[in-house]
Amino acid sequence: MINVGIVGGTGYTGVELIRLLLGHPQVQIKAVTSRGEAGTKIADMFPNLRKRLDLAFTEPTLENLSQCQLVFFATPNGTAMKMAEELLQAGVKIIDLAADFRLKSADVWQHWYAMEHSCPHLLTEAVYGLPEVNRAEIAQARLVANPGCYPTAVQLGFMPLLEAGLIQVDNLIADVKSGVSGAGRKAAVGMLMGETGESFKAYAVSGHRHHPEIEQGLNKFAKVPVHLTFVPHLLPMIRGIHATLYSSLSNKDVDLQALYAERYQNEPFVDVLPPGSHPETRSVRGVNMCQIAVHRPQNSNTVVVLSVIDNLVKGAAGQAVQNMNIMCGLPETTGLNGIGLLP
Amino acid sequence: MINVGIVGGTGYTGVELIRLLLGHPQVQIKAVTSRGEAGTKIADMFPNLRKRLDLAFTEPTLENLSQCQLVFFATPNGTAMKMAEELLQAGVKIIDLAADFRLKSADVWQHWYAMEHSCPHLLTEAVYGLPEVNRAEIAQARLVANPGCYPTAVQLGFMPLLEAGLIQVDNLIADVKSGVSGAGRKAAVGMLMGETGESFKAYAVSGHRHHPEIEQGLNKFAKVPVHLTFVPHLLPMIRGIHATLYSSLSNKDVDLQALYAERYQNEPFVDVLPPGSHPETRSVRGVNMCQIAVHRPQNSNTVVVLSVIDNLVKGAAGQAVQNMNIMCGLPETTGLNGIGLLP
Amino acid sequence: MINVGIVGGTGYTGVELIRLLLGHPQVQIKAVTSRGEAGTKIADMFPNLRKRLDLAFTEPTLENLSQCQLVFFATPNGTAMKMAEELLQAGVKIIDLAADFRLKSADVWQHWYAMEHSCPHLLTEAVYGLPEVNRAEIAQARLVANPGCYPTAVQLGFMPLLEAGLIQVDNLIADVKSGVSGAGRKAAVGMLMGETGESFKAYAVSGHRHHPEIEQGLNKFAKVPVHLTFVPHLLPMIRGIHATLYSSLSNKDVDLQALYAERYQNEPFVDVLPPGSHPETRSVRGVNMCQIAVHRPQNSNTVVVLSVIDNLVKGAAGQAVQNMNIMCGLPETTGLNGIGLLP
Amino acid sequence: MINVGIVGGTGYTGVELIRLLLGHPQVQIKAVTSRGEAGTKIADMFPNLRKRLDLAFTEPTLENLSQCQLVFFATPNGTAMKMAEELLQAGVKIIDLAADFRLKSADVWQHWYAMEHSCPHLLTEAVYGLPEVNRAEIAQARLVANPGCYPTAVQLGFMPLLEAGLIQVDNLIADVKSGVSGAGRKAAVGMLMGETGESFKAYAVSGHRHHPEIEQGLNKFAKVPVHLTFVPHLLPMIRGIHATLYSSLSNKDVDLQALYAERYQNEPFVDVLPPGSHPETRSVRGVNMCQIAVHRPQNSNTVVVLSVIDNLVKGAAGQAVQNMNIMCGLPETTGLNGIGLLP
Repeated sequence: MINVGIVGGTGYTGVELIRLLLGHPQVQIKAVTSRGEAGTKIADMFPNLRKRLDLAFTEPTLENLSQCQLVFFATPNGTAMKMAEELLQAGVKIIDLAADFRLKSADVWQHWYAMEHSCPHLLTEAVYGLPEVNRAEIAQARLVANPGCYPTAVQLGFMPLLEAGLIQVDNLIADVKSGVSGAGRKAAVGMLMGETGESFKAYAVSGHRHHPEIEQGLNKFAKVPVHLTFVPHLLPMIRGIHATLYSSLSNKDVDLQALYAERYQNEPFVDVLPPGSHPETRSVRGVNMCQIAVHRPQNSNTVVVLSVIDNLVKGAAGQAVQNMNIMCGLPETTGLNGIGLLP
Repeated sequence: MINVGIVGGTGYTGVELIRLLLGHPQVQIKAVTSRGEAGTKIADMFPNLRKRLDLAFTEPTLENLSQCQLVFFATPNGTAMKMAEELLQAGVKIIDLAADFRLKSADVWQHWYAMEHSCPHLLTEAVYGLPEVNRAEIAQARLVANPGCYPTAVQLGFMPLLEAGLIQVDNLIADVKSGVSGAGRKAAVGMLMGETGESFKAYAVSGHRHHPEIEQGLNKFAKVPVHLTFVPHLLPMIRGIHATLYSSLSNKDVDLQALYAERYQNEPFVDVLPPGSHPETRSVRGVNMCQIAVHRPQNSNTVVVLSVIDNLVKGAAGQAVQNMNIMCGLPETTGLNGIGLLP
Repeated sequence: MINVGIVGGTGYTGVELIRLLLGHPQVQIKAVTSRGEAGTKIADMFPNLRKRLDLAFTEPTLENLSQCQLVFFATPNGTAMKMAEELLQAGVKIIDLAADFRLKSADVWQHWYAMEHSCPHLLTEAVYGLPEVNRAEIAQARLVANPGCYPTAVQLGFMPLLEAGLIQVDNLIADVKSGVSGAGRKAAVGMLMGETGESFKAYAVSGHRHHPEIEQGLNKFAKVPVHLTFVPHLLPMIRGIHATLYSSLSNKDVDLQALYAERYQNEPFVDVLPPGSHPETRSVRGVNMCQIAVHRPQNSNTVVVLSVIDNLVKGAAGQAVQNMNIMCGLPETTGLNGIGLLP
Repeated sequence: MINVGIVGGTGYTGVELIRLLLGHPQVQIKAVTSRGEAGTKIADMFPNLRKRLDLAFTEPTLENLSQCQLVFFATPNGTAMKMAEELLQAGVKIIDLAADFRLKSADVWQHWYAMEHSCPHLLTEAVYGLPEVNRAEIAQARLVANPGCYPTAVQLGFMPLLEAGLIQVDNLIADVKSGVSGAGRKAAVGMLMGETGESFKAYAVSGHRHHPEIEQGLNKFAKVPVHLTFVPHLLPMIRGIHATLYSSLSNKDVDLQALYAERYQNEPFVDVLPPGSHPETRSVRGVNMCQIAVHRPQNSNTVVVLSVIDNLVKGAAGQAVQNMNIMCGLPETTGLNGIGLLP
């Protein structure tokens, strides 16, 4: 059994992580911390956990957390970087579900996240936790930066094309739509049901924090700098991300379906749908899966890739458990065999 | 391993049953039938099952089904009664998720379901599959009538009060609200999102088919005939039933919380919430659980019981698996340990 | 033209009031105030008002408001009572959409609203603005307390029965369901779409602030004290209230349909549906209308009344405009002729 | 007063047209037809019309319709073309809200709509009813083809750029999202709330009927053939279209905001938002308005245009009334002054 802790258990990522870890046969949750809710029974805040979890929230102290082999940070940006060093020194592995260790450049990070990075020297060590790319490094890592939700959907969608050098890299477009749970569980007028229900809009068209993270990944796949236009939108629903990706083929004589099928044939959590498919976010609701379809409308130059994930699972907590499995030498799919809740 | 079959796998109850059975360690799904879709891969219709189920729909023939030890009917009303006899004779146990065997009186059944009952003699043998009442009979049964969704939520809510003889039985009120999946997956203008979204209404106030089923159960608990006013409503959401139950205490000196806690203390799938609670349907989304809270507003005579289930799980497929476990001598919770998907 | 002002224009009630008043041929909006947003163009906050309203929010000063003949308070509870006196003295009529003047007893008010009432002497003068009851008094009033949303739906539903003395008053039940806009436009975790979407729950079963307001009204209709059980619920949608009301007939020989039709025959904003109807909240979306249906299931003793309104219109801003029309001697329906937005 | 008729009044476009026409001061609705519902009171089917419309559906006969000066077809594709000729001969003007007269080429029409066109000679006469382009022709027309909902949002979004010759026309991308009411009010499993709620998907990526209609319009603006990739998506909500449009600037030295502001400065129903805006579909709910914002993220080559309409209003019934006003010599905004219902 692996003893794990969760720092910041009161958000959507936290409760989803608890749900997945309670179904994991090799894990024991030792601590779930919350400064504001220490002492509260976790199942009192999240009644879906009743009869399944008897823990109360505790303070995020080193004492509480160093009894764990691995600690997940399901905290706001800027929290993990303050505790990472001492936990690593105490021999605790870390998976940060926030953004603290996702970007390799401290400068870029500081620009987008508008705070100083408190341990930039760990940015080199940190491994970007997208297993479909970095599986081997993750297996050796002490510190894993779990990817953002948009970046997961977009990178998995573009990866085969960019790795194969088949598209023009100067004009990638990612039109991405997310359910509201991506914004977390914090009081904000803009996320009220009265504001987000029965309506749809784009936001942050001039620039979103996930943009540099996505470009960092795409650049790596392409081995040259790409230019990406990334437009996030807010869906009137709770869970799910749908990325619609556009690019222009530089080589028209390619079997796109075969390319995707081959690239992901051994990936347990990427599912390439048959030709002509339209993935629905509900098909992956609650599960660690990315479903992808690739189209070339009217046989033109334009490739359209459709990529769906559950933002809280493959886009957050599920991918974190996948990373934990890899880091701890467990079969990668352990505890991640759920089936999407449909309807 | 128990070999099971599902007759009628193209509806919401069917796909939910498949989801639960695929997670059940002691079950092998041998056949899922559909007259209209025979030959279609099930996962082509329900992509949440991709990578998990490789079966295609088959014809609902005796040949296909008699290889099973137990067959679930997830069919429209009036289907199971036509096949039950020959399957039972072939030694196959049956759980009908439709209404064919729920009422003890063929006359009442024929009145409400507007068709002739083709095997009324089986009504006596059939066991009403509400384990919290009929566990012992279910264990011996060949033929189980799985309760309706409304009846499950209402009966579990009223049961302790009626069994204890604490309320006036001539004026029970059940104001119940259901998500749209309760109406099934069939084309109907009234169930379009354009008709049901962002709106709320009562329906069938003059009489609903679940009314006689509920009264049959309540009468049994009370050991006298009760009078129930039952008003169903349609919620602008997919899964979940919330029953708000009203009755007048005949004995005011009773600890209602203790009564409920005690009645359900050994029930794995009924969870009595602490005093003052308000159960939410989302807390039981996707899981076989009924959460109940009991209130006595302003310490008056009126008891208000709040009872929530997922209509497709404890109100249908989950309860069917629970019944299967009992009928087959397995631990009752096998395969039913999921945690509600929140948010 | 009537010059009007709105104190507190940043909430849902405020923007709805602006929408209705902009369509009113006899009204000129002179000021919309907001302490926090003074200086902001109103249409920048609410882009549905672009091209239609060029005002900016101003400070809620006497100077700004005393240029108006009538001022609406679309503020939190406890605001209007602080400004009412000086405005009245300045000759300005007031309609308070909050609760400050709804209850006749300052003690009861202070108990439920947990603050001291700053001008209890105005409680006697204030007229409860339910035109179907108090039309004549409203016409003479300087200060009108606009009813709450739940109280409007429940009172209009029970009124004919109570006025006619046809039901047992000791066991009235109001099971009421509201869209989320009833909770206003303020940051609160509990009203996030992630918390309220795709779920349903009761709340405040032990006691809700609208309870004393409803009972005050019902007592007046019945001319004796009634006992009401009131259970509010939160719907996963934005606009609309559906009240399902239960009571026991003391006189069974009554034509309920005729009773309701007659009581409301001259009411422009109450619409009694044909026998057997089930009103839908969407039918009154955006309009000042209460649709009511009355049922007597299985011809029993129990009357079931279904009453729907748009909580922001007949439950708030629309009723306020109706009251304004009455107070200002205009035809009562002026500016209130919209048609419900369906679907 | 203009006497008008509506052929096909049982769908969402029909009921929306009735709502708008009842609020139009210069219009009298003489007939609303429906073969299937002839004799039914319209307000019985659509209770939002109660107290406002006393008509019953009638048969779509020449006799019933020739008393009208103008007839709207709110029918399925292929209906208007069968009645157009005899109505025109009877001196009745026609606005077809379906697709029968939108494409100039009968061959292209027959390819996409999979039926023979019964009066191809009228395709030349028919005027495409996008007033922002064809106002003068519409004023002279006997027969107007009301644009599709997607085509309205996309054409208004791309128009200024193409007319000004500022973008590369070989790689236009329209990523468009629609509420479910765009699919109409007909029984279909795919449009059940259980299928479309809480989920999101693209559809018809390989080709959608609105594609040739959009390209026909864009070609006209650009005066050269454009290449468009058009991907429609289905939103889990009822009303609203959001088009996100991408193109590459061929001339970088251009003030895009000024371009849009100038192009639409005299258009009553196109509203160019301030720089940096993100239009929301709810801001135009129920009203005949297109709100547009134009972005150039990170000052790159890529223009991103955001364009929102209510698919049933500016995308259907509202635009039809706008066309009627133009055809009948009325001020264009008559009866179209509603304000978006927010929230």
